[in-house]
Amino acid sequence: MINYPNKKKMTNRNYVSASNRGMDFEAMINQTNAFYRDNDIAVIYKKPIPIQIVGVDYARRSAAKITEAYYKLPSTTDYNGVYKGHYIDFEAKETRSKTSFPIKNIHEHQINHLKQVKNHGGICFIIVYFSALGQIFLMDADDVVRFYERSKKGRKSITVAEFEATSYPIKEGYRKPVDYLKILDEHYLKQNP
Amino acid sequence: MINYPNKKKMTNRNYVSASNRGMDFEAMINQTNAFYRDNDIAVIYKKPIPIQIVGVDYARRSAAKITEAYYKLPSTTDYNGVYKGHYIDFEAKETRSKTSFPIKNIHEHQINHLKQVKNHGGICFIIVYFSALGQIFLMDADDVVRFYERSKKGRKSITVAEFEATSYPIKEGYRKPVDYLKILDEHYLKQNP
Repeated sequence: MINYPNKKKMTNRNYVSASNRGMDFEAMINQTNAFYRDNDIAVIYKKPIPIQIVGVDYARRSAAKITEAYYKLPSTTDYNGVYKGHYIDFEAKETRSKTSFPIKNIHEHQINHLKQVKNHGGICFIIVYFSALGQIFLMDADDVVRFYERSKKGRKSITVAEFEATSYPIKEGYRKPVDYLKILDEHYLKQNP
Repeated sequence: MINYPNKKKMTNRNYVSASNRGMDFEAMINQTNAFYRDNDIAVIYKKPIPIQIVGVDYARRSAAKITEAYYKLPSTTDYNGVYKGHYIDFEAKETRSKTSFPIKNIHEHQINHLKQVKNHGGICFIIVYFSALGQIFLMDADDVVRFYERSKKGRKSITVAEFEATSYPIKEGYRKPVDYLKILDEHYLKQNP
């Protein structure tokens, strides 16, 4: 008989959250999307960061070197792809606040993009991670737009209580740190799986 | 009565093709997508070019300057978005050849991406512009994959005759230089508009 001295290490007692493993929220989402792709569940990617390229050095034949470039404001959300034939589009944001999410973290371009996508039959939302609370919420684009409109004349942020009242909580996982497709299955695709 | 001395200039006789206006194919596709968005027809964008950022200078407070970066090979296609609730995904390529399109212009990553997207119910294809012939074809991902497989042991390109036999021609337009959604309406969404 073989002895397994390390068996204990394999149990759930050693579960360490993604955030505790030092991953930031973007890495958690990326790992989730990689899991979805690797397991043929969905094809969803983060878009590359938009860059304005000003200078390129072609001196080396093998690889052009970009020598001057600047970050551009994104005109769309960061993530999109396809799940069960549906167009999926979302933005993911992290906040250290324990009380509310500042709306200025979502640009006006992105709000307009969410509206447009919704109009054309896409499924779109934001995912917000309250890192100090360890809480993740998925909020539908309609509510995001509503809170954005409110911010023009009133409160500039969405409180945790408002997330709890309008959004879907996502439980942090291990192999799928942010399993947002579970929410879509349960709340968006029930009638139309 | 008002006289319109410039009326003649507004007629079709002064039509100049996008290519003759000096636009490359990417610009023609981008203009088409802008038209679709501006007229609330579809929300389809070109993804930013993927860049590996190596050095950033934060000396100026207003704008971080990227001082060293390199182009990365894209793992997906260049264009995606939503049209009538459908996920749309494609790659657009231009060739100066008058006889055939070299398959090496589509990377293996992109072929795999097209396969995956198709499996998940997306509408995916490539659009190829034979600039010397002034001909544009939309080829379904299934055919692209088939020609790609063939290229592993045989012919490394897709002839114009093969495009004519398997693909849909797109007539170049003015405000919508490459109106590919017309093809989708006619051939992909007939049963499911």
